[in-house]
Amino acid sequence: MRLVGIARDGGVVAGSLADDGGTVREIAPLADFWADPARHLAAEPTGAPRPVGEVELVPPVLPGARVVCIGLNYLKHIAEGSFSGEPLPEHPTLFARWTASLTVGDAEVPVPVDEDGLDWEGEVVAWVGETLVDATPEQALAAVVGYSTFNDITARRAQKLTSQWILGKNADRSGPLGPMVPAAEVGDLRDGLRVQTRVNGETVQDGRTDQMVYGVGETLALVSRTMTLHPGDLLATGTPSGVGYARTPPWLLQPGDVVEVEVDRLGVLRTTVVAGRTA
Amino acid sequence: MRLVGIARDGGVVAGSLADDGGTVREIAPLADFWADPARHLAAEPTGAPRPVGEVELVPPVLPGARVVCIGLNYLKHIAEGSFSGEPLPEHPTLFARWTASLTVGDAEVPVPVDEDGLDWEGEVVAWVGETLVDATPEQALAAVVGYSTFNDITARRAQKLTSQWILGKNADRSGPLGPMVPAAEVGDLRDGLRVQTRVNGETVQDGRTDQMVYGVGETLALVSRTMTLHPGDLLATGTPSGVGYARTPPWLLQPGDVVEVEVDRLGVLRTTVVAGRTA
Repeated sequence: MRLVGIARDGGVVAGSLADDGGTVREIAPLADFWADPARHLAAEPTGAPRPVGEVELVPPVLPGARVVCIGLNYLKHIAEGSFSGEPLPEHPTLFARWTASLTVGDAEVPVPVDEDGLDWEGEVVAWVGETLVDATPEQALAAVVGYSTFNDITARRAQKLTSQWILGKNADRSGPLGPMVPAAEVGDLRDGLRVQTRVNGETVQDGRTDQMVYGVGETLALVSRTMTLHPGDLLATGTPSGVGYARTPPWLLQPGDVVEVEVDRLGVLRTTVVAGRTA
Repeated sequence: MRLVGIARDGGVVAGSLADDGGTVREIAPLADFWADPARHLAAEPTGAPRPVGEVELVPPVLPGARVVCIGLNYLKHIAEGSFSGEPLPEHPTLFARWTASLTVGDAEVPVPVDEDGLDWEGEVVAWVGETLVDATPEQALAAVVGYSTFNDITARRAQKLTSQWILGKNADRSGPLGPMVPAAEVGDLRDGLRVQTRVNGETVQDGRTDQMVYGVGETLALVSRTMTLHPGDLLATGTPSGVGYARTPPWLLQPGDVVEVEVDRLGVLRTTVVAGRTA
């Protein structure tokens, strides 16, 4: 199964997307799902199958969830970017997305007015399934209920305006997120899932998750020593090398470009860049 | 009136706190309030007055709201901290809080396990009341519906682990937020509201909002050029000089300490620091 969100009556219902992607079945209201995700994942969905084209898919993310993101987690990506001259950080460099920046696959992402384009960052998101306070890395990893493809699409000019990155990491609809695949079907990122990003069919990133410097368990454990993690919180695990702004010449996504992130066992996440923005 | 949140049936209702702080009247479900805050602020609350002691007050903040925070906005604070050796940033240095870190006055804030204590940062929050896309500073300022006292309580060790601050800015219950006072009752921060912070009665910060480098209108306008702002989003405007970690010797809040933030026209926000954390 693949966990998705279904918009209904101003709220969101957790749904199970069939492996062929054609139909979806309702599981439970989203808040109920995240109150006990392991139980809901183990049960058979009760809803009748409906064609995907008849529903509006949205991220199965609670509005108040935290999207914790690792900024520098692949050595070759650290070496290509603005931080290449500095020592390897001793700890994961964490930044924040608000859930309002998230969207689903096949969405259109607009270029903000001050940007020369948008940059891609294909990666994997891990979903927290249990409350974590001062957890060990082993406890934290065991609490992960699933993984998704993610494109941490970045407004580089806004990101680099000051020392802190968050404005450029929260542009409208800039965080396309794939359906959640249960952890039991994915295994361990340390096994090395291939992460590829393509722009208009051309491969621009090609890494493996066993190249990550900071693991999912150790990063979530670190976070849990300052703030309590709750079911439904997300960890974006960082992107491999090959982003656009670090190229010579720089290469940024323009309106009409199609960017795809493909991760072993998690599928393909496709996004189209568009001009302008409407409220 | 003072806008507060009232916890009820697993949700939150917007309420009007009487000026004497003794009673509260319900206005509307929180999502309804933020769908048209100007209308609700102009109308008389329909609910009957109830003693404050009989309700649970919570921040009147939607879970999905963005809490955009300015990190360096008072010259004397920039001069006292880690960034003192660097040029004045040309743009406001923005970082993120998730709404899960917010709490109300008279709450107890725990010291995370790795910290030697917590640091105070008394400041003013502005509340966005309209949708803003590519707004001018004048449009953005006109869209502010109210202001609150805020204490941006900081876990300094977590904040300084890497280049990005957000972990240390999102400790559990580390963002006490006072009731919202309508903008019409507050006037303009450029008039210079006094912002004072006291620890166990001793004044540790004493600034005025006309010392801010980046104004509310210009900062919200900048943000709106990358991400659409929605009613209910918040801007924390930065803290004056006098924080604890920059002192010689450093002074951090310990369990049992009481910290108060007082702002002209906005009132006093009181917080007690406690040991440990429970999930």
